[in-house]
Amino acid sequence: MSVEATAPGKVILFGEHSVVYKGPAIVLAIDKRAKVNVNRRQDKRIYFDSLDLGFAGFFEDENYIPVKGETWRGRRLEALRVSAFKTMEQLDVESGLDLIIRSEIPIAAGLGSSAAICVAIVAAVGELFDGGLSKREICDLAYEGEKVVHGTPSGVDNNISTFGGILRYERGAEMERFELEGSLPFVIGNSKRKRSTRRLVGRVRALREREPDLVDEVIDSMAEVSRKGLEALVKRDLPRLGDLMNINHGLLSSLGVSIAKLDLMVHASRGAGAYGAKLTGAGGGGCMIALSERSKMGAIQKAIQRCRGDPHVIDVSYEGVKTRRLE
Amino acid sequence: MSVEATAPGKVILFGEHSVVYKGPAIVLAIDKRAKVNVNRRQDKRIYFDSLDLGFAGFFEDENYIPVKGETWRGRRLEALRVSAFKTMEQLDVESGLDLIIRSEIPIAAGLGSSAAICVAIVAAVGELFDGGLSKREICDLAYEGEKVVHGTPSGVDNNISTFGGILRYERGAEMERFELEGSLPFVIGNSKRKRSTRRLVGRVRALREREPDLVDEVIDSMAEVSRKGLEALVKRDLPRLGDLMNINHGLLSSLGVSIAKLDLMVHASRGAGAYGAKLTGAGGGGCMIALSERSKMGAIQKAIQRCRGDPHVIDVSYEGVKTRRLE
Repeated sequence: MSVEATAPGKVILFGEHSVVYKGPAIVLAIDKRAKVNVNRRQDKRIYFDSLDLGFAGFFEDENYIPVKGETWRGRRLEALRVSAFKTMEQLDVESGLDLIIRSEIPIAAGLGSSAAICVAIVAAVGELFDGGLSKREICDLAYEGEKVVHGTPSGVDNNISTFGGILRYERGAEMERFELEGSLPFVIGNSKRKRSTRRLVGRVRALREREPDLVDEVIDSMAEVSRKGLEALVKRDLPRLGDLMNINHGLLSSLGVSIAKLDLMVHASRGAGAYGAKLTGAGGGGCMIALSERSKMGAIQKAIQRCRGDPHVIDVSYEGVKTRRLE
Repeated sequence: MSVEATAPGKVILFGEHSVVYKGPAIVLAIDKRAKVNVNRRQDKRIYFDSLDLGFAGFFEDENYIPVKGETWRGRRLEALRVSAFKTMEQLDVESGLDLIIRSEIPIAAGLGSSAAICVAIVAAVGELFDGGLSKREICDLAYEGEKVVHGTPSGVDNNISTFGGILRYERGAEMERFELEGSLPFVIGNSKRKRSTRRLVGRVRALREREPDLVDEVIDSMAEVSRKGLEALVKRDLPRLGDLMNINHGLLSSLGVSIAKLDLMVHASRGAGAYGAKLTGAGGGGCMIALSERSKMGAIQKAIQRCRGDPHVIDVSYEGVKTRRLE
């Protein structure tokens, strides 16, 4: 028997960077998913095979032996091992595993691909051993994997991949999950420039040390944008959401986290009729997100392509992690 | 006898847009000047000849008769007539004039070319008729011309063109003029996109009507940037000035006044080693300004050219309007 699990990626609509200091982040699960297939092995090896991620190899204890692709994929690969290992540890089983990973979520683009993969691994391995894990448990185990990549991540990514929907996250407050009626499509544009969240969070922190008053004012404004953005989202006030996205993009730029290619795609999307557009995630690369009427999405995608970006139409997804047994 | 007068253009370092609502603008006179040559005519015609501005023609009373170039250059040309006419009116003379206008200041780029020309016209005509006009009187007469173009302009442009140097302007406060030791070079990049200050001020006003709290917060931050920017300028703290310029550019972007080409030149300048870079003036076109060490200015100019912008190295100029008699 094998088990398949899938989990959604995410996109940050409001609150990237400011959430580190103040106010909420508004995060949407998206209809791009990571898929994990798992089978038991007779030996103790944990095999990973991912064509999308460009590697195949196995762990023998904690040593990674490559079969295809690069010899060592660093923390990201280690996160996968930890997710599988911690799940078996929790269920008090020891086994070798064959894990096949496929993902529709662009990698290292701020779309939560690593969390989605960790969540899907935990869910798949849990189901394989009849663990009866609750979503909460899946989420927490995936967090162990995420910690390997991100140190002490906010926990947003594993939560959104596990539960789907719309999440309001604020430090020191309970996460709140929302659902809205109907679809809520966006166009995202991938700059195809990899970026490091850690480095960009550090850059904002350094600027804040140099200009504390101003940066705190900007962060206050961003927190306000997030709060108003959630209101506008709940009311489906798309023109207002667009204004708020545009304002947010400028505020993020003022903290030094945008790059020319993101700005270009943002302007191109607005020029093609978007209500608004902004970078999403840590910046320094990764993606931008544009909100528009459906009728303009074709033009926006073309505009993003003309900037040499990679456009995708995405929609919010209320479907969190899912598993199914295959014979 | 003929008279020549020259007057400097300007660049806004901090406070564009926010100054309409709150806080100071910091404006520098630059070492690019408009030059006006004036001679009496025996008839009552007021001739204007400007190759740079692309026209030559004359006023017979208030009717414009083109000789070269477009038939009617709108308010800008009318501003020149008003400057000459009001000056003669003030001096109680009536005469025809031959005015030759040459300008090193890019037109419609937010660099104060129209005010510099008005100031130079007033000074030249005043000197031609031995009017003994004070700088204050020159400034005020040029303001009459500026009003034709801009409605009720702040008065910054005619002041800086008349007096030169560094000006701190804030609504409801006296303008303050500063001088610093030594040179203070910048690179500017002209997008070669014409823009309308009026339209962009209107766009900010419209956004402020839709999102009053947020826009006021952003304007507060911009006012704070201007105040800190003046401190940093006086101390010649170039890295800090750079940070503040970068923050200011993002805040201006959040109000929707930047365009892709300005953002591109800003990023390119930073990438080429600038301490900071921002759009200058109303946005929607016009220029950006980058601060750097002298050794990096060549690289920054090349970077701006690669974005198809038009780079100039400028320096602050303490020389206001000047006249001299030619035989």
